[in-house]
This record gives sequence, structure tokens and C-alpha cells, in this order.
Amino acid sequence: MNRLLGTLTGIALMAGLAAPMAARAEDKDVIDYRQNVMKTLGSQVAILGAMAQKKIPNDNFAAHLQILAETAASAKAAFTPKVVGGKSKATIWDNSADFNKKLDELVQVATAGATAAKAQGAAAGMPRLTCKGCHDVYREETK
Amino acid sequence: MNRLLGTLTGIALMAGLAAPMAARAEDKDVIDYRQNVMKTLGSQVAILGAMAQKKIPNDNFAAHLQILAETAASAKAAFTPKVVGGKSKATIWDNSADFNKKLDELVQVATAGATAAKAQGAAAGMPRLTCKGCHDVYREETK
Repeated sequence: MNRLLGTLTGIALMAGLAAPMAARAEDKDVIDYRQNVMKTLGSQVAILGAMAQKKIPNDNFAAHLQILAETAASAKAAFTPKVVGGKSKATIWDNSADFNKKLDELVQVATAGATAAKAQGAAAGMPRLTCKGCHDVYREETK
Repeated sequence: MNRLLGTLTGIALMAGLAAPMAARAEDKDVIDYRQNVMKTLGSQVAILGAMAQKKIPNDNFAAHLQILAETAASAKAAFTPKVVGGKSKATIWDNSADFNKKLDELVQVATAGATAAKAQGAAAGMPRLTCKGCHDVYREETK
């Protein structure tokens, strides 16, 4: 009986250890997801910036703005699960109405920019993205 | 006259120094461009992989495949200027017919995958991307 209890305690301990490990793995997946969305936004903004400054040929200006707009639209799903960590501050979920409003504005501006670029090419110019407005408030700065 | 010649020589020397510096700056822009395209491909493939493995919700599966397809289509312009460097081997431009064929295949596979995902959602599955087929031959491995 003592041996059985010992075994049960052992199983319970293992289950207790396993549960937070699984939770951490899932959290990492959620953080990876939104960081990958942000990486795409970052690389597309860098490409568009170089095109706007005529450092590289701008034939694909509209295509990169379209990719940016679609990625911005995908960001909301990535930030839905409340998992504080990575560079995300807890205030994202504490002030979710404001955070989502800012994200909606980004989607709107990027989508309008992509539509303009499809009609006018690079002459449409770079839309006024609001990256900083959100990053200043909701992103943990790397020291 | 000697003074004028000296000044002209000075200007010529400065121009001679400035030219390769400018060339290097342009090369960096070209390399940055294609590396940013590859970063977007990498982050989107990571997102799609996590969705295919059910690690994260897959509601945006079709959207991320669409972004992947559009980014793949933009890669050709990024690799057009012959600038060896970054992780790009010179063989990209030595065997440009094969390189472009491989890139066309990637665009075709990603676009077909995005079309299928728009119709069937995540059930369409991850298209068989040919990243490795190109990277093994044309990408310098980081040691």
C-alpha cells in the first residue's frame, strides 16, 4: 500500500512538473507566432523604405505594400492569446481596447497604402505607418 | 598652375575613393533587399509550420500562404542584380537559368498552395516548398 502510494505520489509529481512544462512550450509557440508576424512587418517596411529612398528598384513597391497590409491584418490573431512575454508588455491585454484600436489603424493605413500603390505605383508613396505609436507603449525595449 | 594641378589631383583622388564607397553602399542595399525577402519567407514558413503542427490556431492559414506566395513572387527582382555577397554564392548568376527555374518552381508551388488554402483552409495542407533544393546549391552556409 505504501509502495502504491509512493508510486501515485511519483506520478502526481511528474504530472505536476509536466503541466507547467507543456504550458511553457505552448506559450513559446504563441510568442514565436507574433514575433514572426513582426519580423515580416519589419522586413517589408525595410524593403519599402529602401524603395522610397530609391536605393533599390521600386518595380515591386505595390507588391511589398500588399504583403505588408496582409501581414498587418494577420497580426490581430497572433496577439489574441494573452501570453505576456517576448517583448510584449502585459498592458497589451490590460488595455486591449486601445491596443486593438491601434492595430486596426495600422491595418487600415497599410491597406489604403497598398490600394494606392496598386493604382499609382511607387508614386503613391509610403503610407504613414504607426509602428512607433504602438511600440512606444506596448513593446519592451531591448536594453 | 601647379597649385591647380594639385587641387585637381586631390579632387580626382577623392572621387576615386568615393566611387568604390558608393558602390559598396549600393551593394549593401541590394543584399539587404534579398535578405529581407528571405526573412519574410522564413518567418511565414515558420508560422505555417506551427499551424500545420497545430501548435497555434490555424484560422489565418490561407492568409499566411498568400503572403508566402506574394513574397516568393517578389524574390526574382531581389536576385536580379549580380551582387555576390551576403549568403549568396556567385553560382546564382553563373547558373542563372537553373536558379530562375528553381525560383519559378517555388512561386508556382506557393501560389498553388495559397489557392488551395483559400478554398479548403488548413485542410489544404502545407505545400511542398523547395527551399532546401535551392539553399543547398546557392546559399553559403554560416559556419
